[in-house]
Amino acid sequence: MSRSEKYLTIEAVAELVGGKILQKGASDLLIKGIGSIYEAKEGEITFAAELNLAKTVLKQSGSLKASALIVPEGLDEVPFIPSVEVKNPHLALAALLNHFHKETLPSAHIDPSASVSDKATVSPDAVVGPLCVIEEGAVIEEGVWLKAQVYIGKNARVGKDSVLYPGVRLLDACAVGERCILHANAVIGSDGFGFVKDGEKQIKVLQVGNVLLGNDVEVGACTTIDRATMNTTHIKDGVKLDNLVHIAHNCIIGENSMIMALAALAGSTIFEEGVIFAGQSGTSGHITLGKGSVIVGRSGVTKNVPPGSFMSGFPLRPHAEERRIKASLTYLPDLVKRVAALEKKQKE
Amino acid sequence: MSRSEKYLTIEAVAELVGGKILQKGASDLLIKGIGSIYEAKEGEITFAAELNLAKTVLKQSGSLKASALIVPEGLDEVPFIPSVEVKNPHLALAALLNHFHKETLPSAHIDPSASVSDKATVSPDAVVGPLCVIEEGAVIEEGVWLKAQVYIGKNARVGKDSVLYPGVRLLDACAVGERCILHANAVIGSDGFGFVKDGEKQIKVLQVGNVLLGNDVEVGACTTIDRATMNTTHIKDGVKLDNLVHIAHNCIIGENSMIMALAALAGSTIFEEGVIFAGQSGTSGHITLGKGSVIVGRSGVTKNVPPGSFMSGFPLRPHAEERRIKASLTYLPDLVKRVAALEKKQKE
Amino acid sequence: MSRSEKYLTIEAVAELVGGKILQKGASDLLIKGIGSIYEAKEGEITFAAELNLAKTVLKQSGSLKASALIVPEGLDEVPFIPSVEVKNPHLALAALLNHFHKETLPSAHIDPSASVSDKATVSPDAVVGPLCVIEEGAVIEEGVWLKAQVYIGKNARVGKDSVLYPGVRLLDACAVGERCILHANAVIGSDGFGFVKDGEKQIKVLQVGNVLLGNDVEVGACTTIDRATMNTTHIKDGVKLDNLVHIAHNCIIGENSMIMALAALAGSTIFEEGVIFAGQSGTSGHITLGKGSVIVGRSGVTKNVPPGSFMSGFPLRPHAEERRIKASLTYLPDLVKRVAALEKKQKE
Repeated sequence: MSRSEKYLTIEAVAELVGGKILQKGASDLLIKGIGSIYEAKEGEITFAAELNLAKTVLKQSGSLKASALIVPEGLDEVPFIPSVEVKNPHLALAALLNHFHKETLPSAHIDPSASVSDKATVSPDAVVGPLCVIEEGAVIEEGVWLKAQVYIGKNARVGKDSVLYPGVRLLDACAVGERCILHANAVIGSDGFGFVKDGEKQIKVLQVGNVLLGNDVEVGACTTIDRATMNTTHIKDGVKLDNLVHIAHNCIIGENSMIMALAALAGSTIFEEGVIFAGQSGTSGHITLGKGSVIVGRSGVTKNVPPGSFMSGFPLRPHAEERRIKASLTYLPDLVKRVAALEKKQKE
Repeated sequence: MSRSEKYLTIEAVAELVGGKILQKGASDLLIKGIGSIYEAKEGEITFAAELNLAKTVLKQSGSLKASALIVPEGLDEVPFIPSVEVKNPHLALAALLNHFHKETLPSAHIDPSASVSDKATVSPDAVVGPLCVIEEGAVIEEGVWLKAQVYIGKNARVGKDSVLYPGVRLLDACAVGERCILHANAVIGSDGFGFVKDGEKQIKVLQVGNVLLGNDVEVGACTTIDRATMNTTHIKDGVKLDNLVHIAHNCIIGENSMIMALAALAGSTIFEEGVIFAGQSGTSGHITLGKGSVIVGRSGVTKNVPPGSFMSGFPLRPHAEERRIKASLTYLPDLVKRVAALEKKQKE
Repeated sequence: MSRSEKYLTIEAVAELVGGKILQKGASDLLIKGIGSIYEAKEGEITFAAELNLAKTVLKQSGSLKASALIVPEGLDEVPFIPSVEVKNPHLALAALLNHFHKETLPSAHIDPSASVSDKATVSPDAVVGPLCVIEEGAVIEEGVWLKAQVYIGKNARVGKDSVLYPGVRLLDACAVGERCILHANAVIGSDGFGFVKDGEKQIKVLQVGNVLLGNDVEVGACTTIDRATMNTTHIKDGVKLDNLVHIAHNCIIGENSMIMALAALAGSTIFEEGVIFAGQSGTSGHITLGKGSVIVGRSGVTKNVPPGSFMSGFPLRPHAEERRIKASLTYLPDLVKRVAALEKKQKE
């Protein structure tokens, strides 16, 4: 599709984002792109994520260069520029970005510089970019895009429409579901950190399991997921992992969970569905975080977490309690002196 | 060796793991593989790591599908299935996994897609996989396996029987010992973070030392080890590093030490032998951790640590003391009020 | 320049480092290299960074094998070996290391194993090493060295005299300034971690901005910098990033700031000029750290930080206050008991 074929009328915008037109504008208005609120140019649409922002913006007509606006429900006046009202402006943004910017798969081909085993199966509808390696027994399904310099190990599998960025290493016997996105230099299937002490020495326990990613999983740059000692390290459908995250052997990450940058899960950690695990937090092994629990950044989790909890700290506590403790620390140095004074007076 | 040539009689199992047969089973019993306790299938052996687990398992004959069992010493009844008793079931597991699963080196060859300097020395008994780069002056010893897309810099050296996974970068003048395993996208020999301020600007101090890994060292995926400013960053024999670990310039890591995921050692940190340094912990530079010291996860080490210590927290304290402090924090918000109440009463 | 052409007379050393000769030595003295104080050999120069070290060293003539010495200003006696006095010995070290060790760019060429789009622009004075990929629209300026296995995405740009180590991924539309150094397996331009919840699912928000690195920027091994959702993630001139650092989408890092290993900046964090952000620290998003502020290691920053602050802890506090709190924690378990005792006595 050429660039101009992507232009949208205001009606087409409303349809795309499932919204209601508040102000229609000129009949020949065409939206040619999308920009953030202060950078969008003439011909582009922009969005105000919150009602207060929308109101403020609409009072300062001079500062807007955009030609149309997405607003949340609840405005009490008709905007001066073409506008579409939606329940969730962020979802509308996602839809518009997809419309204008989603990269289309190049024509299917295998770059001649790639090293592809003749015992691998590559769909005729996949793209294998320059200097990729695909080992024997591997399966690359239709619509997959291995961008460049990707490694696909023996008997590994990449599901339909997944994109692997340069430098991704998908190691032997590991599998990626459909519509996954693996960012640059991510490693799937490195050995679990398993050793057993024999005298002073640490003897390696071979790691013979694998890693399985469900559908719609996203894995950040330089994130590492270890294969299971035996069985499978399982990242379920819809999980999103940020950059530089470490998932140890035999972890199971429940559907639609999110793990932010530099978090580290020790072996056999289990996340139920929809867990939010913020940046630089960690777990000790063999524990379970219940469905929908939220762990604040820089926390250390060493015990099971009940479903629906909102926790922080190390040791982990309910977030409100942890906040109270952290606030009261301010008084501690003084408290030490005051208690000594009380004791002295009491003795007198 | 074909798969069936690896089958083991119960006597062969006992010999392999250095154990004693408790129950021999049928004379034609052949063990064809190994599985975890709830997943092992008929024909496979499994193991109970602890005595209580062994006892529980042996009471529930229905739940076991395995055909043989490794148990720790101390059972007071003869098991109902073929069983071998050992001192350390984890060591037996390691031995059995090695027997059934250890990957054998492919026939020696240099993949034609690799870029190998004619001034490099590659043993005729090494394997250089697809799209590797080996620069001039590098030495690759016998039995080495560079899996794919590995980089070996100028005058770097890889010792006998070491395995380098895809995307490993071994930079100029760095050396890897024998039987080492370097996981995908690990970096050995990046520049130390050395700068000197000149006015507002940070001037780079060239990092002209190197990195030396001893024998039997394992380096995790996306782990980075910086070269020394001058001299050598030294990772000694038997050290095991997990994923996403950072070792700064001029560190010295003593024999058989272990460093878990996302730990960060600042410049010139010294570990004596057998230090255990858990995940997400860090050190400030120019300190020494004594022989056999253990640092709990998420600790910050800013001073020397005596040999044999068991420490945690930031600042670091003996672990028992740190635990007491962390437990007593629960009372702190209340304590602030109680001290105020005491003061008020005392005034009255 | 051959090795011997780099030899320096003591006068040439003094000129190079902008110092004053304290002792000249033999007229035929030639300095052939540089070493650290206890490892430098005959014919090499070494340096004492501090006055006390210089004095100690000069009392123990036997332990020095170097043939010349850089010392700080302030010695009250003439050294027994050829010596040059400077304001800042570290700057002198940087200059001498540059003189003796700075790698020179190989003759300009494109390695035949590289995959270079015929729609890319590569300066005839650049070096493109083995197995690099350069996509269409990319621009590689003069004096650039792509060492090996580097990826340069569509419409990306690498400025004059920058060096990209093996495995660096510079993704589509991102730009690197002049004289930058990007260490092995660093990733520039991975997607920001942007999702919007739709029921249970997390919907991806396409990340359509880019990353811009200024001049003289250094990026550590396996460090990841996410592209902006829209607009630009901007790393300004002279910024130095250590290994395994995470910079999220839309961050702006001010000139000459330094970020140490395993630090994580959440989205839209702004650093003004000259911020020092130590290892394993993190920020929550949408905050500003003022000019010249210093954040100690393992801190968590969740609010704006005033210029010139010296802060630590989580929550962040002025460093002196945080230290007092951490020191007083030692008394807390006991304090709990003492307050109970006071209450008991007061009741009596």
